[in-house]
Amino acid sequence: MLLEAIYHQPKSQYAYAYNEETLHIRVRTKRHDMDRVSVVWGDKYDFSPEKVTTTRMVVFAQDDLFDYYHVAIKPPFRRFAYAFKFETEDQTVFLNEVGFTKDKLSSSGVGMLWSPSGMFEFPYLNPIDVHSTPDWVKDAVFYQIFPERFANGDPSISPKEVEAWTPDAVPTATNFFGGDLQGVIDNLDYLVDLGITCIYFTPFFEAHSNHKYDTIDYLKVDPQFGDNNTAKKLVKEAHRKGIKIMLDAVFNHSGYYFPPFQDVLLNGEKSRFKEWFHIKSFPVSTNPLNYDTFGFVPEMPKLDTEHPEVKAYLLEVARYWVEDIGVDGWRLDVANEIDHQFWREFRHTVKKANPEAYILGETWHNSMAWLVGDQFDAVMNYPVTNSILDFFVKDEIDAASFMGRLDAMQIAYPKQANEVAFNLLDSHDTPRLLTIAEGNKARMKLAVLFQLTYSGAPCIYYGDEIGMAGGADPGCRKPMIWEKEHQDLDILAFYKKMIQLRKDHRSLKDGTFRFLSAEKDKKIIAYERTDVMDRFIIILNSDNQKQKVTLENISAGTFRNIDTDEKYQVLKGEITVEVKAVSAIILKDQ
Amino acid sequence: MLLEAIYHQPKSQYAYAYNEETLHIRVRTKRHDMDRVSVVWGDKYDFSPEKVTTTRMVVFAQDDLFDYYHVAIKPPFRRFAYAFKFETEDQTVFLNEVGFTKDKLSSSGVGMLWSPSGMFEFPYLNPIDVHSTPDWVKDAVFYQIFPERFANGDPSISPKEVEAWTPDAVPTATNFFGGDLQGVIDNLDYLVDLGITCIYFTPFFEAHSNHKYDTIDYLKVDPQFGDNNTAKKLVKEAHRKGIKIMLDAVFNHSGYYFPPFQDVLLNGEKSRFKEWFHIKSFPVSTNPLNYDTFGFVPEMPKLDTEHPEVKAYLLEVARYWVEDIGVDGWRLDVANEIDHQFWREFRHTVKKANPEAYILGETWHNSMAWLVGDQFDAVMNYPVTNSILDFFVKDEIDAASFMGRLDAMQIAYPKQANEVAFNLLDSHDTPRLLTIAEGNKARMKLAVLFQLTYSGAPCIYYGDEIGMAGGADPGCRKPMIWEKEHQDLDILAFYKKMIQLRKDHRSLKDGTFRFLSAEKDKKIIAYERTDVMDRFIIILNSDNQKQKVTLENISAGTFRNIDTDEKYQVLKGEITVEVKAVSAIILKDQ
Repeated sequence: MLLEAIYHQPKSQYAYAYNEETLHIRVRTKRHDMDRVSVVWGDKYDFSPEKVTTTRMVVFAQDDLFDYYHVAIKPPFRRFAYAFKFETEDQTVFLNEVGFTKDKLSSSGVGMLWSPSGMFEFPYLNPIDVHSTPDWVKDAVFYQIFPERFANGDPSISPKEVEAWTPDAVPTATNFFGGDLQGVIDNLDYLVDLGITCIYFTPFFEAHSNHKYDTIDYLKVDPQFGDNNTAKKLVKEAHRKGIKIMLDAVFNHSGYYFPPFQDVLLNGEKSRFKEWFHIKSFPVSTNPLNYDTFGFVPEMPKLDTEHPEVKAYLLEVARYWVEDIGVDGWRLDVANEIDHQFWREFRHTVKKANPEAYILGETWHNSMAWLVGDQFDAVMNYPVTNSILDFFVKDEIDAASFMGRLDAMQIAYPKQANEVAFNLLDSHDTPRLLTIAEGNKARMKLAVLFQLTYSGAPCIYYGDEIGMAGGADPGCRKPMIWEKEHQDLDILAFYKKMIQLRKDHRSLKDGTFRFLSAEKDKKIIAYERTDVMDRFIIILNSDNQKQKVTLENISAGTFRNIDTDEKYQVLKGEITVEVKAVSAIILKDQ
Repeated sequence: MLLEAIYHQPKSQYAYAYNEETLHIRVRTKRHDMDRVSVVWGDKYDFSPEKVTTTRMVVFAQDDLFDYYHVAIKPPFRRFAYAFKFETEDQTVFLNEVGFTKDKLSSSGVGMLWSPSGMFEFPYLNPIDVHSTPDWVKDAVFYQIFPERFANGDPSISPKEVEAWTPDAVPTATNFFGGDLQGVIDNLDYLVDLGITCIYFTPFFEAHSNHKYDTIDYLKVDPQFGDNNTAKKLVKEAHRKGIKIMLDAVFNHSGYYFPPFQDVLLNGEKSRFKEWFHIKSFPVSTNPLNYDTFGFVPEMPKLDTEHPEVKAYLLEVARYWVEDIGVDGWRLDVANEIDHQFWREFRHTVKKANPEAYILGETWHNSMAWLVGDQFDAVMNYPVTNSILDFFVKDEIDAASFMGRLDAMQIAYPKQANEVAFNLLDSHDTPRLLTIAEGNKARMKLAVLFQLTYSGAPCIYYGDEIGMAGGADPGCRKPMIWEKEHQDLDILAFYKKMIQLRKDHRSLKDGTFRFLSAEKDKKIIAYERTDVMDRFIIILNSDNQKQKVTLENISAGTFRNIDTDEKYQVLKGEITVEVKAVSAIILKDQ
């Protein structure tokens, strides 16, 4: 038993309230080290050997080095003292807050045997502290729209030097095509038909560039896209068709032409806005740069979100679009560079306007510090993005690594955050999926199939579903292709089928997820998704050769290949499946 | 190299802002596993092999299983991408956010070599998020007063059936002796003479019992103790003499006679206060208990601190005593059973009234979740209490365990929380120190010597300094003995000497602490405390035999025994010291 591998931290992703009644308790051990792991628990004010309960834990995630055990417990008085019991054939070890003891639980010789004071504690489950995330996101299929490039519904407001909207149009860093909000309204039925339930818009507030990340006025739709009434009409129409709207909050920095920054440029130390930014000396200079920016980009001056006026302004922005216009969520740009205190007040403001609003942080790194219930609902799931790309699309890692990296995310955050994690495969910031796959549609489909049968909320970048290609920005920002003859209808049909399958089966959304196969040096994976209604086994072969795999520990039943109707009988807990090169089989129980 | 033992978590006690410029980065490895551990770091937007800095880390804590490495770094642009480099004679391994790689730092084969996106990040150091703790607490020596038992300064307000204040008085759960605030005012000079700089009062608000933990009116001094003017006078007089005041906030539950609870008892479902508590059904009943309480104590109904009226009332209490009366801190009773959201607003209220106010949580368990900067400054350091008692007083653990348990606390929290941790040895809730030591004054002195030369703020329970004894509550709550002939003047002199030594030397307060000896199965420990001014080596022998110990890796110098003036020369980095049974030697550099 490798004691050094065992890890638990109270009040963290290893011990948290899942809802107002339920605690999730987790512990890490060396991979394949234990025969049985249990939580030994009782009320903190009534803890005795007679009253203690021992509850077995199950492995819910694994990586190269570790098994991660999990259990859900409902303490009768909302408070909870606990320890862990680790068993192998020849050894039993307990772990409490003081340390390890052999054979029987104690407070490690401090003379407080069975006293709760030596135990770990979840001191009290207070409802207001529960990290509660919006239910609707579990059912959502997101669609990301870059407003300048989706559809031009009102040419009268397009920029003067707009370029032709053709399938071979070439986007540059600075050109315009005339997409607008009316264009989105006009095409809502297309999204309904595809199965979309929420649009994520990159910014559409007044700004200088074509990407609108350089905000001039956070309270106004860019005139090139319409006006605030168009936005209101869009939200209303979308809601009527069952589609929600999420906007992009670029609060870390303003644009260069944001009037307060212009005022600072003009009036220097005399500007009443000089404390809205992080100016190190006057006059303001871009070279050498003497103010804080996003990255080292002079055009994006970092806002001082600790300043009361800046905070009040941005919180009003957050409130206005949710309460007055009716949008359903905010995606927070560069979210982890803004102070935690700002996000706490932001959450309070937004959830007061709409308790079901979705708060999604753009963070590319471990984000546990923002997912404790007082800040974000969830984050953009780049580690999952990268793992899917590396395994299915780039063919760079093996099945064991893929599982390890996905499972590492399961232990990284509380379950309720992962249930509404934002699973994207590409975006306006990356090459398009089909281009990353070097045009290999089969690999692209594997990635999409996985995305749409995994937990978390999938997001499709506009045009991917009709086979649009494009390299890194600006290549990935071509105008949407609307002519059927230029669309890849095979890819479109595939997206529709997979989205519908997901919509028809809760198990594919928030059912239990269990890897059935993910071996070292192999390129094939299999997993089971189950809930009370049904059960799927999904096998994806990322190898360039056909592969046969035998899946073990499957409970009895008969499965059907949903594409071919071929039957698979579980025999002695096993199913053997042969999967063609770079393809997938979806089995559903009968 | 045992990879399973290596642990790091971004944005946690392993990676936090120590002040507005400095990050602390820590990592755990198997004990004695590494020759060298480093942080490899750079700006997150300009991360390349040419620009990266490699900074060596040092072991700052150790326990049975692990070494804990630490380093302080000031990133020039307040943002920070990093990885770890582990070296042994024959192996070099890197760890970044994606996982381990051998020989060179990479993003584990995901094709993002040297891209910051594979690195750990501290995304941005925003000043408002820094867990900032009050400087004065680092210098403080606390003195805990149980107001009913310290001194009777105004017999006219004593309870009617007050008992005689004699050295052999016997406290019971319900009797009264007449201590009051005027009694404290009258004896401030005694505390000044002892060296006290802050009084921690257990509750003195109006309440039913002698301990006053069953509050009736949080805004009023109990008439038995004086009135709010007496409190104001006490604060003013104490401040004039250099003594601060910390009060006890019993916000988890009210007393049975708290008028809102009485109203609920009387009016049941019709009470306008029915939502101030957690009532499960009406009429309210104590048997069977149908409302939430502290523990299972019907007389202490748990307050619903999520209710806006309750919250507003308690926050006004918090503000009133700090702003209007001038107290310097709050000790938070049963702090970890109240919701985090309440404490966030509490901190905001209290720090607004006095940014230097000390917020101290009573928690008996790992409290990291409250020490991230938005809630408590620090917690009552019971794990250190228990370790000191177990090693010096009860003689139940060996030196290695003692070090392991203390060092576990160093890694458990950010440094700024440990610097102002509240180190008590006993209280109104436990037997007195001398009684725990079964009258063994030598062992008591070892514990006190350690307490007063360790980091964190020491607290003396009233009367310990004159050798008062007493078992568990109510035995530990005897009236203070003021007659010199009944005081142990030897113990008093010892306390005075140790307090003065601490006051004269910053190194004993927040200097670097380093164990020099703490061996398995041994009962002797040695440690070094250093700062720019001076250096101490302190050796405590908890063995019942005299012990000789050779201390290694000491930098050159000559030391002097502060009691005997005996000289010790460092030879080849070594000093050998012989220490009598159950006694200590304090060496100071010359």
